[in-house]
Amino acid sequence: MKFSTIADKIQITAASSLTANPGHDPDIAGVAAVDQALVGMLSYIEGDKFASFVGTTQTNALILPQNPVLQAKATERGIAWLSTPDPRLAFARAIALFYTPYQPAPGIHPTAVIDPTATCGENVSIGANAVIQAGVYLGEGVCVHPNVVVYPQVRVGDRTVLHANCTIHERTQIGADCAIHSGAVVGAEGFGFVPTPHGWEKMEQSGIVVIEDGVRVGSNSTIDRPAVGTTRVGRGTKLDNLVHIAHGCQVGEGVVMAGQVGMAGGVTIGNRVILAGQVGIANQAVIGEGAIATAKAGIHGDVAPGEIVTGSPALPHKVSLKASAVYRRLPEMYKIVQRLQKHLL
Amino acid sequence: MKFSTIADKIQITAASSLTANPGHDPDIAGVAAVDQALVGMLSYIEGDKFASFVGTTQTNALILPQNPVLQAKATERGIAWLSTPDPRLAFARAIALFYTPYQPAPGIHPTAVIDPTATCGENVSIGANAVIQAGVYLGEGVCVHPNVVVYPQVRVGDRTVLHANCTIHERTQIGADCAIHSGAVVGAEGFGFVPTPHGWEKMEQSGIVVIEDGVRVGSNSTIDRPAVGTTRVGRGTKLDNLVHIAHGCQVGEGVVMAGQVGMAGGVTIGNRVILAGQVGIANQAVIGEGAIATAKAGIHGDVAPGEIVTGSPALPHKVSLKASAVYRRLPEMYKIVQRLQKHLL
Amino acid sequence: MKFSTIADKIQITAASSLTANPGHDPDIAGVAAVDQALVGMLSYIEGDKFASFVGTTQTNALILPQNPVLQAKATERGIAWLSTPDPRLAFARAIALFYTPYQPAPGIHPTAVIDPTATCGENVSIGANAVIQAGVYLGEGVCVHPNVVVYPQVRVGDRTVLHANCTIHERTQIGADCAIHSGAVVGAEGFGFVPTPHGWEKMEQSGIVVIEDGVRVGSNSTIDRPAVGTTRVGRGTKLDNLVHIAHGCQVGEGVVMAGQVGMAGGVTIGNRVILAGQVGIANQAVIGEGAIATAKAGIHGDVAPGEIVTGSPALPHKVSLKASAVYRRLPEMYKIVQRLQKHLL
Repeated sequence: MKFSTIADKIQITAASSLTANPGHDPDIAGVAAVDQALVGMLSYIEGDKFASFVGTTQTNALILPQNPVLQAKATERGIAWLSTPDPRLAFARAIALFYTPYQPAPGIHPTAVIDPTATCGENVSIGANAVIQAGVYLGEGVCVHPNVVVYPQVRVGDRTVLHANCTIHERTQIGADCAIHSGAVVGAEGFGFVPTPHGWEKMEQSGIVVIEDGVRVGSNSTIDRPAVGTTRVGRGTKLDNLVHIAHGCQVGEGVVMAGQVGMAGGVTIGNRVILAGQVGIANQAVIGEGAIATAKAGIHGDVAPGEIVTGSPALPHKVSLKASAVYRRLPEMYKIVQRLQKHLL
Repeated sequence: MKFSTIADKIQITAASSLTANPGHDPDIAGVAAVDQALVGMLSYIEGDKFASFVGTTQTNALILPQNPVLQAKATERGIAWLSTPDPRLAFARAIALFYTPYQPAPGIHPTAVIDPTATCGENVSIGANAVIQAGVYLGEGVCVHPNVVVYPQVRVGDRTVLHANCTIHERTQIGADCAIHSGAVVGAEGFGFVPTPHGWEKMEQSGIVVIEDGVRVGSNSTIDRPAVGTTRVGRGTKLDNLVHIAHGCQVGEGVVMAGQVGMAGGVTIGNRVILAGQVGIANQAVIGEGAIATAKAGIHGDVAPGEIVTGSPALPHKVSLKASAVYRRLPEMYKIVQRLQKHLL
Repeated sequence: MKFSTIADKIQITAASSLTANPGHDPDIAGVAAVDQALVGMLSYIEGDKFASFVGTTQTNALILPQNPVLQAKATERGIAWLSTPDPRLAFARAIALFYTPYQPAPGIHPTAVIDPTATCGENVSIGANAVIQAGVYLGEGVCVHPNVVVYPQVRVGDRTVLHANCTIHERTQIGADCAIHSGAVVGAEGFGFVPTPHGWEKMEQSGIVVIEDGVRVGSNSTIDRPAVGTTRVGRGTKLDNLVHIAHGCQVGEGVVMAGQVGMAGGVTIGNRVILAGQVGIANQAVIGEGAIATAKAGIHGDVAPGEIVTGSPALPHKVSLKASAVYRRLPEMYKIVQRLQKHLL
C-alpha cells in the first residue's frame, strides 16, 4: 500500500512530507515498533522517550507528532512522514489497514450443545463444545468461541464476541459490540455472607449483571451479580485482565481499568474514570466522573470528580508525591529530630 | 406474600409494626435495595449511611434495626416495619423467600465424558461436555456444570456444586455443601522450584488439596497442592474471586477472604480470620484466630490472635492509622525540621 | 527403597551417617514435611526456623544442611542422615523417587475436535472435548488436557503440557517442555485503546506471544499479545498463578514471578529477575538482570541490575527498610517536632 494511501485512509493527518515532495511515496508492507521497523514498515513516534528514534530508526515511513524539529530530521534522513496531533491514534488506524483479526465464519459447530429454547439472530457463529442453555438469546452476528458456557436466560447483543472458555451466568444481559475475553466469568453470584453465631450464612444473590454496549471484559476478569438489583458496567467501558467487579457495583461509561484492579461491593465509578493497575476500592465508595487513580492506589472513601489520587490509603496525587519524596528521608530526619530533642528539651 | 408471613419466616424479628396495627399487613411481591424499592418491595436499613432513607424510600415495608427513632419515622410514613438486631441477616432470609437459585435437574448429559471407573451417589447432575476422569467419586446430589474438568482420583462430597469451566486436579478432596465457582482451579501443582546453577529445578508436588465442608471458592481463584502433605481449607470458609492459596497453606474454619487476596506457601490462617481485598501474606506466616487484615495489607510475619493489622508492611491497625495521618503532613514537618536544624545545630 | 539408595540417586550428598555406621540403613517408604514425618518417611531441614525439629521429629531419616551440630543431634537420636549444601534440592530429588505425576497416555480422545489442517508429532495426547483449530502444530509428546482450546496457527513445542481449560490464542508460539496450567490465557489481544472525543478506539493487536522452552505459566495467568511485534517470555522462566503479563513485555530467561504479579505494557524484565507476590510494574519500565522486587513492590521506573527494591513507590531495599522502621514512629516524632517548634520558633 502506498504511503499516500495510508495518509488518506487514517483521516487525522495534519501535514505530511508529500506536500513538499509528492514523488517520495514509498510502498508500505506493514507496521512495526519504531525500534524494530525496517524499510517498508510504517512506524510512529510519540512522547519524549521515543523522539530520538527519528534519528536512528531504519524505517522509511513515520507518523510524527506536530513537531517541526522531528519533521525536519525525518526529511533529512529521507523518511516519508505524516504528522498529526495524535500519532498513536493514527498508528492504531494504520495497523487496522494491514491486519485482519481472526473471526470464525458464521455457523454452528455440530458439537455445540444448544438448548432448544435458545434463540439466535442471523449469522451467529457458535464454536465446538460451546454450551448454550435454556432461554438464551444471541443477537445477530454474535460469535461464541469453543467451550464457552452460557447459563440460562442470558441475553447477548449483536456482534458481541465471547472468547473461548469464558462463562456467562444466568440472566446476565450483555449489550452489542462487546468482547468478553477467555476465562472471564460474568454474572456469577456475588460474595454475600452474613455472620451468625453458627458461621457465615449465605445471602442469595438474586440480582443480575448488565453489561452495556461496547464493553471489553479482559481475560479471567470476574463481574458478580448482587443480592438485589443490578451490577452495571456502562457503555464503552474497557476492563483489562484479572479485574474484579463485585456485586452491586455501578461502573459508568468510558471507564478504563487496568490489570488486576479490584473493587468491593456497591462501589460507584463515574464516567470516564481511569483506574491504573492493581487499584483497590473499598465497598460503597463513590469515584467521581473523570477521576484518576494511579497504580496500586487503595481507595477507602469517596473521590471527587476529576481528582487524581495516589497511594494507599489514597491521597490527592500532589500531596502523595510530596509525602513520598520525604518518606525516603525519614531515617535522616529522625536522627535530626533526636539530636534536636536531646539538645533542647 | 403477606408482610406478617415474612416476619414469621425469617425467625429473628424483635418487634414489628403489626403489634400496634395488625391490620396494616401489606402484600410483598419481592425485595429491593432501599433506594430502589417501590411499593410492595421489602427492603432494609442498616448503618448510619442508610438511615436517612427511612424518610425517603418509596417502599411500604422495611426491616429496621432496633432503633425507636427509625421505627417511629416508618410508622409516621405508613411503612410496615419489623425490627431486629441484625437487619442484614433478616433481609438475606427474606431474599431466599422470593428467589429460587438456578440448579440443573439431576441427570447426566449425553455429551459428558465420564470414565467407567468413576462413581456417583444418587441424584447427581453432570452437565454437557463435563469431563470426569478415572477413579473420581461424586457424592449424592453433586452438581457438575458444563465444561468442568475433574482430574483422576478426586472425591467430591454430597451436594457440592462445581460451576462451569472450573478445574479440579488429581486427588483433590472436596467436602459436602461446597461451591466451586467458574474458572476456579483447585489442586494444581504448587509453585515449587529450587535454584541451581543450571536454572530452576522443579520440585514435584506430590501432596493434595483438601477442602472441608461448606467452603466457597470464588470464580477464577486458585488453590495449589504442595510438595508433600496437604493444602487445607477449613470448614465453612468463604473465598471471594481471584484469590490465590499457595501450596501447603493451612486455612482454618469460618475464614473470609475478599477478592484478590494472595498468600505464599506454607501460610497458616487461624479460624475466623478476615482478610480484606488484595491482602498479601508472605510464606510461613501464621495468622492467629480471629485476626483481621484490612484491604491491601502486606503481612510479612506472624499476626497475634484477634489483632487487626493495616498497611504494608502491616502494622497494628491503630498504629497504622496514626502513622498514615502524619504521613500526609510529612512535607510540612520536613520544612519545620529543616528550619529548626538551621536555627539550632 | 533403602536410605543408601536414595543417597546415591540424588547425587548431591556431601556426607552421610552411613560412613560411620553402614549398617544403619533404614527402609524409606516415602517423603514428608519434618513436622509430620513418621518412621520410614524421609524429610529435610533447612533454615534456622526448622533446625529445632531435628530434636523432635519422629522420622528416622533426614536430609540435613552441612551443620555438624545438627548431624550429631541426628546421630544421637538414631536418625540416619545425609548432609548437603542444598537440602531443599536434595529433598526435591527425593520426592521424585517416590512420586509419579499424573500424565494421560498418548492418544486422541474421540470427543476432541481437531481441525483437519492441524498437525501433530508422535505420541501426542489430546483429551476429551479439547478443541484444536486450523493450522495448529503440536510437537512430539505434547499433552493437551480436556477442554483446552487452541486457536488457529498456534505452534506448541515437544513435550509441552496444556492443562485443562486453558486457552491458547491465535498464532502463539510455545516452546518445548513448557507447562501451561489450567485456566491460563496466552496470546489474547492486549489492552490497547486510544482516547478520542467519541470514546476509546481500539488499537488492533496484530502481534504475537512467544513462550520459549521450559517456561511454566501458572493457573489463571494471562499473557497478552501486542499491537505490533512480540510479547516474549524467556527460556526457563517460571510464573506462578494469576500473573498478568501485558502486551509487548519482554521477559528474560530464568525469571521467577510469584502469585498475582502484574505488569503494564512494554515492560522489560532482565534474566533471572525475581518478583515476589503482588508486585506491579508500570509501563515501559526496565528491570535489570538479577534484580529482586519484594512482595507488593510498586515499580514506576527502571531498576538497576542486581538491585533489590521494596515498597510502593519502590525504593532500594535498605532505604525502604529504614524508612518503614521510622514510619511507625511518625506520630511520636510529630509530637516532638510540634513541641520543638512551639518552644523555639
